[in-house]
Amino acid sequence: MAAYPAQPAGAMKPPVPHVPAGEMLKLLDELAAYSAPGPGVTRLLYTPEWQGVQHFLQERMAGLGLEVRMDQVGNVYGTLAGSQVSDKVILTGSHIDTVVNGGRYDGAYGVAAAVTALHYLLETFGPPLRTLAVVSFCEEEGSRFPLTFWGSGNVTGLYSGKECIDCTDADGITLGAAMAACSLAGDEGLAAEAAAGLEQSFWRNSSPVRSDIAAYVELHIEQGIILERTSRKIGVVQAIAGQRRYLVKVGGTANHAGTTPMGLRQDALAGSAEMLLALERSALAEGDPLVATTGRLEVYPGTSNVIPGEVQFTLDIRHSEAGVLERFCAAVLAEFAELGRRRGLTLEVQPLLETAPAPMDQELRGALEEICLRQEKPYLSMVSGAGHDAQLFAPRCPAAMIFVPSRGGISHSPGEYTSPEDLAAGLEVLTAILYRLAYAEVT
Amino acid sequence: MAAYPAQPAGAMKPPVPHVPAGEMLKLLDELAAYSAPGPGVTRLLYTPEWQGVQHFLQERMAGLGLEVRMDQVGNVYGTLAGSQVSDKVILTGSHIDTVVNGGRYDGAYGVAAAVTALHYLLETFGPPLRTLAVVSFCEEEGSRFPLTFWGSGNVTGLYSGKECIDCTDADGITLGAAMAACSLAGDEGLAAEAAAGLEQSFWRNSSPVRSDIAAYVELHIEQGIILERTSRKIGVVQAIAGQRRYLVKVGGTANHAGTTPMGLRQDALAGSAEMLLALERSALAEGDPLVATTGRLEVYPGTSNVIPGEVQFTLDIRHSEAGVLERFCAAVLAEFAELGRRRGLTLEVQPLLETAPAPMDQELRGALEEICLRQEKPYLSMVSGAGHDAQLFAPRCPAAMIFVPSRGGISHSPGEYTSPEDLAAGLEVLTAILYRLAYAEVT
Repeated sequence: MAAYPAQPAGAMKPPVPHVPAGEMLKLLDELAAYSAPGPGVTRLLYTPEWQGVQHFLQERMAGLGLEVRMDQVGNVYGTLAGSQVSDKVILTGSHIDTVVNGGRYDGAYGVAAAVTALHYLLETFGPPLRTLAVVSFCEEEGSRFPLTFWGSGNVTGLYSGKECIDCTDADGITLGAAMAACSLAGDEGLAAEAAAGLEQSFWRNSSPVRSDIAAYVELHIEQGIILERTSRKIGVVQAIAGQRRYLVKVGGTANHAGTTPMGLRQDALAGSAEMLLALERSALAEGDPLVATTGRLEVYPGTSNVIPGEVQFTLDIRHSEAGVLERFCAAVLAEFAELGRRRGLTLEVQPLLETAPAPMDQELRGALEEICLRQEKPYLSMVSGAGHDAQLFAPRCPAAMIFVPSRGGISHSPGEYTSPEDLAAGLEVLTAILYRLAYAEVT
Repeated sequence: MAAYPAQPAGAMKPPVPHVPAGEMLKLLDELAAYSAPGPGVTRLLYTPEWQGVQHFLQERMAGLGLEVRMDQVGNVYGTLAGSQVSDKVILTGSHIDTVVNGGRYDGAYGVAAAVTALHYLLETFGPPLRTLAVVSFCEEEGSRFPLTFWGSGNVTGLYSGKECIDCTDADGITLGAAMAACSLAGDEGLAAEAAAGLEQSFWRNSSPVRSDIAAYVELHIEQGIILERTSRKIGVVQAIAGQRRYLVKVGGTANHAGTTPMGLRQDALAGSAEMLLALERSALAEGDPLVATTGRLEVYPGTSNVIPGEVQFTLDIRHSEAGVLERFCAAVLAEFAELGRRRGLTLEVQPLLETAPAPMDQELRGALEEICLRQEKPYLSMVSGAGHDAQLFAPRCPAAMIFVPSRGGISHSPGEYTSPEDLAAGLEVLTAILYRLAYAEVT
């Protein structure tokens, strides 16, 4: 790959691109304004605030000279056509949706930085040699419908769109109805788009599936505390951890809390407590990057004077290596079975989710590390424990992820925060890698 | 106390009274018919089915020759006036309310047996020397309003009635409104009562407080598995266990399940699991009759991919000796504090309930054991882990409880069952002790 940027003669250190971080910070403010009422940012798929932000982004990107379109599920693209290679696309961006009462940075940062980077590159270097595009994925969080990665999943073929049309949100509204309501709302938007020369952006016109992605690069907040604890400014993601999720049902005998001696109980909660501690012990013994969590646990009948007859709890287990994940899950479930057996409890384990670890492209990782060294940004090569859109591209094309620190590791919360300096550092690294990918000479 | 019954000359074994168990079993069937729809028996305070059963009992008892009245909160009495002592009452009975989808025996058995015993004693021996009465307490379970022991509590002064008038059921109906609705419903009942010569039974006319109780004897199903496991027919209750209930709040840090390494977590659920196991271990070490239970546990935010930031759980701890209960609770809560401290978790403990152990009257226990020996019924002197109306009388007058086996220890369930033979055995013991108390010569 070509060195970037061309070094001015006599300079001891290569210059860092003067990317206008202020433009990105202002854009982040503008995006955060599209939110349902309440603390933090709430921007759920196909809601009015979601429609507002995707229309705003189309207008903004068109104004910056990008070619804009929205596909059938609501992903928004802003493209700079390559002057030499235009049948493949260098794609960068993230998701525009949030969790309920989420933060300003999760997803939105990757979109705002990508728009700013493309604007800077176009202004500074003119059109790229290879086609370069921003994407604002419609959905990643699964917060309204149980459709995690709905945006990138439709692009990469995880979803076909149609099989999910009847799934419902918490108010019983189907995905299909929510999309249809957007189309109606879009009629107003349509007039504005037509006025802005954006006829092609109306989403009914474009299939979401893409087979023309040459590389995918995503900039994101870490949502963890590792960069802060290690005093690094940039995380170069080695791999996105694979996940297994299970629902575990432990069955005992509900009985009177006063009249059943301790020795004659089959207490489903006491048994579950033993399983949770075994899980924690095993995860600590396995060591990083393995994480294992029970986030939900329900007790039945759930009355203070009745011995629990049934407990249901979730398991969320993650690791960057498929073999380790497989071995760990098998060992934990075998231990659960043994603990249940000893207490006369029944055990039922239902797999809920299984995603494979997604290794990031080695060449792109090398390029990112080199950029960090050149820009004198302390970086850490690290595993992402959280899922990201990049994991859907990793099996299909070279994919890369760049992290910036999250203060206190807090995310999915109004308290989510990354300093302007750290946000700017991530933007500089993103811009540099996009330059390498889209402006390097075609050989 | 006088031996009972007088032994026929030449008999090697004293005869068991020929109490008509069939009459009691039929009455149990009749009582079970007053139920809201659904499995088992549901008869909540002041509901139509509750009103029905209390009116039915008044009519039945009046028909058997008892003097009937209902007090202001809905307790129903059937009295046989003593021919020699009538300013004090030997009281027997239990509660007529049930839990939701409860069984046919919990409470109702003690009422049906008491009515049958008084009918038998009156028919066989005429009016008692001392006044003898059946009570059908309006409420003991706390299933509709949070007013456990509402019936016996008003009789013994635990409640004054008025301070609870605004507490509400799950539908937001106040206790006062529920009582007023009964009074209205009672107007129809009133006509029937007037026709039956029961004018005095309308509950607005009679204060529930009583200071004239000479002794209280309650027959009840065990609701536990101890009699079945030890092959005994009768339990002579030594004491009703004291209870402490607490709400424990464990505070940690909610965080992303994927991005927070195991070593950097303050997981409120893992900490709670450690506390629950410590509780179980301590209770097993203390030994019977100590029981300790967590029946309710809630996790916040309760999402599978978020480390629990807060857990709330209940503690229900019981023992028959106040000193042991005090010591055990203090030790467990100190251990919780230490476990929380080690994990960097906050701990907040809120006492919810504290009832003192209620020892049953020693003389009455001796008399009951003698009766069991004479009637050749294998009995067990035992602690009641469950609370009962008798515990409210124990500090005020001699009180006694008789248990019969519960199949499989199951109670508060449509599966609650005691065999007709075991029900009859309990009736025979109850009848014998009532004879001793009410028919023995006044000295």
